[in-house]
Amino acid sequence: MGSLQKVVIAGGGFAGLNAALGLRKAPVDLTVIDRRNYHLFQPLLYQVATGSLPPADIAAPLRSVLHKQKNTRVVLGEVLDFDTGGHRVLMDTGTIEYDTLVLAVGVGNHYFGNSHWIPYAPGLKTVEDATGIRSWIFSAFEKAEMETDPAERKALLRFVIVGAGPTGVELAGAIGEIARDTLRGDFRNIRTEESEILLLEGAATVLPPFDSALREHAERALIGLGVRCRLGVKVTGIDARGVEIETGQGPQRIESRTVLWAAGVRPSPLAKLLAEKLGAKADPSGRILVNESLSIPGHEEIFVVGDIAHFVQDGKPLPGMAPVAMQQGRYVARAIRDRIAGKAPRPFHFRDKGTMATIGRHAAVGEIGKLRFHGILAWLAWLFIHLMYIVGHRNRLLVFIQWAFQYFTFNRGARLITGSARMNEPP
Amino acid sequence: MGSLQKVVIAGGGFAGLNAALGLRKAPVDLTVIDRRNYHLFQPLLYQVATGSLPPADIAAPLRSVLHKQKNTRVVLGEVLDFDTGGHRVLMDTGTIEYDTLVLAVGVGNHYFGNSHWIPYAPGLKTVEDATGIRSWIFSAFEKAEMETDPAERKALLRFVIVGAGPTGVELAGAIGEIARDTLRGDFRNIRTEESEILLLEGAATVLPPFDSALREHAERALIGLGVRCRLGVKVTGIDARGVEIETGQGPQRIESRTVLWAAGVRPSPLAKLLAEKLGAKADPSGRILVNESLSIPGHEEIFVVGDIAHFVQDGKPLPGMAPVAMQQGRYVARAIRDRIAGKAPRPFHFRDKGTMATIGRHAAVGEIGKLRFHGILAWLAWLFIHLMYIVGHRNRLLVFIQWAFQYFTFNRGARLITGSARMNEPP
Repeated sequence: MGSLQKVVIAGGGFAGLNAALGLRKAPVDLTVIDRRNYHLFQPLLYQVATGSLPPADIAAPLRSVLHKQKNTRVVLGEVLDFDTGGHRVLMDTGTIEYDTLVLAVGVGNHYFGNSHWIPYAPGLKTVEDATGIRSWIFSAFEKAEMETDPAERKALLRFVIVGAGPTGVELAGAIGEIARDTLRGDFRNIRTEESEILLLEGAATVLPPFDSALREHAERALIGLGVRCRLGVKVTGIDARGVEIETGQGPQRIESRTVLWAAGVRPSPLAKLLAEKLGAKADPSGRILVNESLSIPGHEEIFVVGDIAHFVQDGKPLPGMAPVAMQQGRYVARAIRDRIAGKAPRPFHFRDKGTMATIGRHAAVGEIGKLRFHGILAWLAWLFIHLMYIVGHRNRLLVFIQWAFQYFTFNRGARLITGSARMNEPP
Repeated sequence: MGSLQKVVIAGGGFAGLNAALGLRKAPVDLTVIDRRNYHLFQPLLYQVATGSLPPADIAAPLRSVLHKQKNTRVVLGEVLDFDTGGHRVLMDTGTIEYDTLVLAVGVGNHYFGNSHWIPYAPGLKTVEDATGIRSWIFSAFEKAEMETDPAERKALLRFVIVGAGPTGVELAGAIGEIARDTLRGDFRNIRTEESEILLLEGAATVLPPFDSALREHAERALIGLGVRCRLGVKVTGIDARGVEIETGQGPQRIESRTVLWAAGVRPSPLAKLLAEKLGAKADPSGRILVNESLSIPGHEEIFVVGDIAHFVQDGKPLPGMAPVAMQQGRYVARAIRDRIAGKAPRPFHFRDKGTMATIGRHAAVGEIGKLRFHGILAWLAWLFIHLMYIVGHRNRLLVFIQWAFQYFTFNRGARLITGSARMNEPP
């Protein structure tokens, strides 16, 4: 394969994996680099964090997914740097040359300059985050059961989620269901259904990108699950014992032993590193500005896809969402094939097939073009679409069965408290 | 429930859980204590360690299993000490009084005075052990793929299992299948089927308790999976880079980056602690000698069950096996009910329904009374029996589906490398 074009894809998320799959028959020498040995179906990670699914069911081993692609190898490694002159990617486990580089390294949590909050308010990005948060949530109920001080017990049964975007709403709704349904009657000293779940949001509404009627539906569904939405509040402090907020009527303190972060993400520092090396432009959040074929202006050999790409369509940058990443990944594979065939790639265009968010049983909201829908139909559509996109027949079947069991029994089968500490401290 | 007899069961394993379930309709005030919030189906833990099943599928949340027993509460806590005069159990999370205590705290790994080997040769007792070992095994292949030094690569692809009892044999067989089937063709620089799997055993045979014809079958099946059995060898040293053995023809060193411990277990130190407090007798391994009703002689109010009980039947102590623990748990529940009803409990008698061990696809050995069987029928029986005993319909169905998928695809769906270190060091 010495004379074939060397394509390196850094990152095996939605964008990277779809690019790799799109090159399966291309005459290239393809290398896929990831820190992890699996592709993670991020949209369902909150279900791992809340005990509905085990991690393995939303993770597909990259080697297994790409097993049949004889032109492809998978390399486990952490990208550390780029030698853009020498066309090389430097990893902790070695160095790899490229003719074409596809950067798809995704985003991490963003604490807006407050990285000291990280230990007290973990975000949800990795399998380890999810199993840590799971241990933390379920331990809070266990500790409350043993606690004799009423104030401490109340703080243990108060859950705070910062950020009311889709992840925050999904987490809050799921914790509401845990407290009201899953654990109801499991304890003797506490009534889990009396737990307080607070969803804090700086904006004036939950799910800001959605239509206002849908946002109201979402808020009502959350209230039905015992979630209290506190909108227009600014978080000014987080520590081991709670959250400080500014409400407009002065500062306030919320005592809570479980605070989760869903307030923001930002590109991997690798995006900034590469942009600086190439003198490429990035937006304030650190996403690299790409041209109509998703490559870096002046550097046709480097594509940037997924959540780290700033691509303007209809006058606005595309949001960091799985459908965008998947379409960009597939596009880049086609663009590379076109170039090899001597054709100029057509510009990228994102086709918006709609946006959805789920709140809980029978409750979801969705928009497809001008169509708005909510309630049980939206919820069923959400289930169906997520099942469809999970990678692998095995995972699809297992997730389906677990959802069915949970639907009929209200139980959550994967609610293990694991980790080095039995009663976990913040992960 | 103030006037009801207070029964405390320490440990939610096979013995403890069966005792608790047997008391569901008894007029007692029952407390079940465990360090974990789940009952673990230990016999399948090696399948978690080798990527076949996720932990949640062999774990049943104790609260959920005992949810319907209104006379029962579950307490999460680590037992630290016993106040036998005051009839109290002291935990890190509180203190609990008992009228009757059932001690079912199980066993841990035993390194025969070489506890400095623990970090280099982890044993398989907990979920964390299993996911750690899983990361370690699959990382070894990943590291070998990136390794350029042939000697180091060979050491990475050499797996050593110490101890050829059922757990050691099952682990060795599963690693053989991973190397020969699951990962075949997944890598580009290594041929995983050339991995070396060494099973070290001090005795002259694998699976010492089994009939000699069956042991030969097991050994042949292991060889077929690429496992080399080295019998009659004594392990004299283990470090980060390999194992030292004494073969009878002098010392020898085996270079290996993955060494697993399956050579022995011993009772929880709590058994020794309680025995000393009561002046009760224990055998050299630390198991407490119990009388015909599984209580401590002179202390009718304390039952000892499962792997920590030394109970003699037909002139021999019963082995530490799940069927013994389950029957003892059920017996103790009946004995407690009998006593409350004013009846003297009949002596405990273990009914041996047979012993089995599996080696790999289509290969297992089994003994039922004088009947010996092996091969595909034994393997199917093994599958069936293990499915039958898994706690919960959900888990049973999920395990069945995953076994079916693995049978037809040779793939292992739960082979995630997780943990704080991407490429794990020994757990």
